[in-house]
Amino acid sequence: MTWTLDGRTLTSRFLLGSAGYPSPAVLQAAVQASGAQVVTVGLRRTHAAAGDNGFVAALRETLAATGGHLLPNTAGCRTAMEAIILAHMARELFDTRWIKLEVVGDDYTLQPDPWELVAAAEQLVKDGFEVFPYCTDDLVTCRRLLDAGCQVLMPWGAPIGSGQGLLNPFALRTLRERLPGVPLIVDAGIGAPSHAAQAMELGLDGVLLNSAVAQAGDPVRMAAAFGQAIAAGRLGFEAGVMARQDMAVASTPVDGRPFLIP
Amino acid sequence: MTWTLDGRTLTSRFLLGSAGYPSPAVLQAAVQASGAQVVTVGLRRTHAAAGDNGFVAALRETLAATGGHLLPNTAGCRTAMEAIILAHMARELFDTRWIKLEVVGDDYTLQPDPWELVAAAEQLVKDGFEVFPYCTDDLVTCRRLLDAGCQVLMPWGAPIGSGQGLLNPFALRTLRERLPGVPLIVDAGIGAPSHAAQAMELGLDGVLLNSAVAQAGDPVRMAAAFGQAIAAGRLGFEAGVMARQDMAVASTPVDGRPFLIP
Amino acid sequence: MTWTLDGRTLTSRFLLGSAGYPSPAVLQAAVQASGAQVVTVGLRRTHAAAGDNGFVAALRETLAATGGHLLPNTAGCRTAMEAIILAHMARELFDTRWIKLEVVGDDYTLQPDPWELVAAAEQLVKDGFEVFPYCTDDLVTCRRLLDAGCQVLMPWGAPIGSGQGLLNPFALRTLRERLPGVPLIVDAGIGAPSHAAQAMELGLDGVLLNSAVAQAGDPVRMAAAFGQAIAAGRLGFEAGVMARQDMAVASTPVDGRPFLIP
Amino acid sequence: MTWTLDGRTLTSRFLLGSAGYPSPAVLQAAVQASGAQVVTVGLRRTHAAAGDNGFVAALRETLAATGGHLLPNTAGCRTAMEAIILAHMARELFDTRWIKLEVVGDDYTLQPDPWELVAAAEQLVKDGFEVFPYCTDDLVTCRRLLDAGCQVLMPWGAPIGSGQGLLNPFALRTLRERLPGVPLIVDAGIGAPSHAAQAMELGLDGVLLNSAVAQAGDPVRMAAAFGQAIAAGRLGFEAGVMARQDMAVASTPVDGRPFLIP
Repeated sequence: MTWTLDGRTLTSRFLLGSAGYPSPAVLQAAVQASGAQVVTVGLRRTHAAAGDNGFVAALRETLAATGGHLLPNTAGCRTAMEAIILAHMARELFDTRWIKLEVVGDDYTLQPDPWELVAAAEQLVKDGFEVFPYCTDDLVTCRRLLDAGCQVLMPWGAPIGSGQGLLNPFALRTLRERLPGVPLIVDAGIGAPSHAAQAMELGLDGVLLNSAVAQAGDPVRMAAAFGQAIAAGRLGFEAGVMARQDMAVASTPVDGRPFLIP
Repeated sequence: MTWTLDGRTLTSRFLLGSAGYPSPAVLQAAVQASGAQVVTVGLRRTHAAAGDNGFVAALRETLAATGGHLLPNTAGCRTAMEAIILAHMARELFDTRWIKLEVVGDDYTLQPDPWELVAAAEQLVKDGFEVFPYCTDDLVTCRRLLDAGCQVLMPWGAPIGSGQGLLNPFALRTLRERLPGVPLIVDAGIGAPSHAAQAMELGLDGVLLNSAVAQAGDPVRMAAAFGQAIAAGRLGFEAGVMARQDMAVASTPVDGRPFLIP
Repeated sequence: MTWTLDGRTLTSRFLLGSAGYPSPAVLQAAVQASGAQVVTVGLRRTHAAAGDNGFVAALRETLAATGGHLLPNTAGCRTAMEAIILAHMARELFDTRWIKLEVVGDDYTLQPDPWELVAAAEQLVKDGFEVFPYCTDDLVTCRRLLDAGCQVLMPWGAPIGSGQGLLNPFALRTLRERLPGVPLIVDAGIGAPSHAAQAMELGLDGVLLNSAVAQAGDPVRMAAAFGQAIAAGRLGFEAGVMARQDMAVASTPVDGRPFLIP
Repeated sequence: MTWTLDGRTLTSRFLLGSAGYPSPAVLQAAVQASGAQVVTVGLRRTHAAAGDNGFVAALRETLAATGGHLLPNTAGCRTAMEAIILAHMARELFDTRWIKLEVVGDDYTLQPDPWELVAAAEQLVKDGFEVFPYCTDDLVTCRRLLDAGCQVLMPWGAPIGSGQGLLNPFALRTLRERLPGVPLIVDAGIGAPSHAAQAMELGLDGVLLNSAVAQAGDPVRMAAAFGQAIAAGRLGFEAGVMARQDMAVASTPVDGRPFLIP
């Protein structure tokens, strides 16, 4: 039941974002409840100039206790160049070669810009990074990212923060079928635990989300809910989900008479 | 996190059917893995005249060990009269006043017959049964069943054994809003763990299924998957699922510059 | 391309409601633009005590010109008895044995009450009416209505006025397959022309709607749009919609070289 | 109700493909029944080396009679270079600067390759072509195509020949909102008239399809069905589709008593 991400063995398939929590304490508790072993962190944050109010320290402390990994991201970048610079800063600050590469191409959908993304990935791989690209669900773009040296892909389910779930399951299923062996992590758009379970049932390898936990009525319990749903979806995938039938099939076939219990 | 069904306190919201498993041993292992504390059993079974090959004994043994409850059903009945007679037989055989009332109105959909169902429920309540009616998702029919004295409702998600998931979430949501306080258990049609989680996120109280576990590649692991997914969906409901947004909302708002970690 | 409803030959499969239009003139123009040959009219209307502001006269005038038929309805009734009385009044007032039978069972969904509906239908058929029952999409209830002597069924697509489209296409498809030869008219819930076309592609016989036209920005053009969409959906059904494929199939197979045009 | 495509005024918003018809006569009849004023034609066709069995001649004859326009396509190309060469051949053969640019990036989905597509579009615009790019529904890619000089975009609804309808209506709606004024024509994946109407209701400008007509039981009637559905969807869009309501809203408000007809 374990899996491997860049050579590190993980038991959880849940990757959690660290933005937008009410307090550092809630963030700590949510990470613990989630079971997530990878937590993303942005460099550019609201009020960043004024400090981060203790969030990063809280995060480091939690991960030190759980043995989890930090995954810095380049949220807010709009060009390959911006993202490359930020990734290098992140490597210094967080002491990790992992980078979640975000290069946004539209203010409305906050969607990845495939061109800038591929360009940034090519450079960062050359610079020795392990690049986790936040990408669209487009197969050709995904192949370009693999050609650029990415070993993991993070296709979106829906726009960041929308909570709409998987807008195009067909595209994700296509990625799974056409890219066997490549770790695929749905990133963005997940709103409810059932969405996360659905992604796992499609055979994807993990789920990354942030808003659905941070904006929940009770972020800590929601973190636990997602942790369970993701494990459940994976287990269901491994156990083999039944085929859909177009009509009813009696679960209790009847062709005898009531029997007597011995 | 516990809930109450006819005065019995339960920790699991998963109700499992016992038909169609490869062997009694697999059934036992699946019940244990599921965490289900209520297991349904049919009186009319294939080859029933020739005995049940040890399934019921296996079931009794498992439930004795886990403290679970048997819920006999009237699968295969087509009239109120048939169902009433079978219910009385079940009470004798299984020594319980609980009865899952199934009165099928169509061979193709195996859907409940609202008229026969209400008629049977009225009689069985008078006869002292605790009736769990397998019903459609129709609000007026559900109210009739409550008027007849049912204290739990089991609306379908989709035709039995179809694995299609929730065909009409709107109808289930309507039942939840219009019948607050009534235990609602989705029964039939669930195919994947994500379907079960979705039902729980709608605020329903439990999920009953059979084929999705019995027909899985690995029924025991699938039983565990559903157990987790149902718990996850409930937890998500209680934690408050975020509202869907029509567009992207940055989870990592950006209006400062990269900050330095102290 | 014509079809028959209670012995009358019709060319249009669109049945239009007459409530909620901005003015009698708009209603007249909408009926004409729609091509509808059957128009429903309610007896109980807002401000009815104060007269109907000329709507019914406008309607009669339009139908006289187009040779269309009035279909009085019992909108607003909650019991069989109320509906029966209103139906008899309607027969006197409108001089027709046709009645669209509505018996509402819930204030929130305005859904039909299957029990009251069947009871009313039984009586009205005995009284010589041609009953068009507004019913749910439940197969067993539909069979009861046929047993009661109804020759047409009008299952809902979604709650009245919701514009949600077909909430449960599976149920409608089931009705079509299980009730061959029975005229099936989707009534209520249609919001957009594409919803109406979808209903026709399922093999249903007609579409009745009101709010989607009356509440449109431009009711007259919307009436025309629905008229075309319903005709298009029917034509598509008759022409045989292609089967869905799980993957791409080249429409332009390529195995030669570019050819020269002679 | 007319619209303009590259300066030519058109009354129909239906663009039809010409591949896969049973015979030239059926193709001719289908084009006529469709009302389409733009018909695509591939250069690389099955058995092309052996001639095209009269299809292109039939097409030219039909378009000459209806005043329609030929839109040659580069179906089957896998690189920008291939497509550029084929486009130049097409200009010679068909005597038109219009080219539907297809550069396929995957054998399974037959999806566009965004990179090769943009590269080919840039060159062809420089070479004086009016490029109609068959593209994905990705906003950033669409903007690149506009930057390259395309004045029309043809995003897919689903993989070619799949008949699945609009797999991601959200993405198409986003294109519409973010690219106001740009003619958007859904190309590929449409299976039923209702799918085409839905695309038009989203505010897109046209629909291009082939398999749904060519593979229908009766291609000629299906061509007519799509022609009507597309016109209906557009008319519905212009008339203003009602907003969806979460619950029922009486179309026939009732607060008086039955009124008497004067």
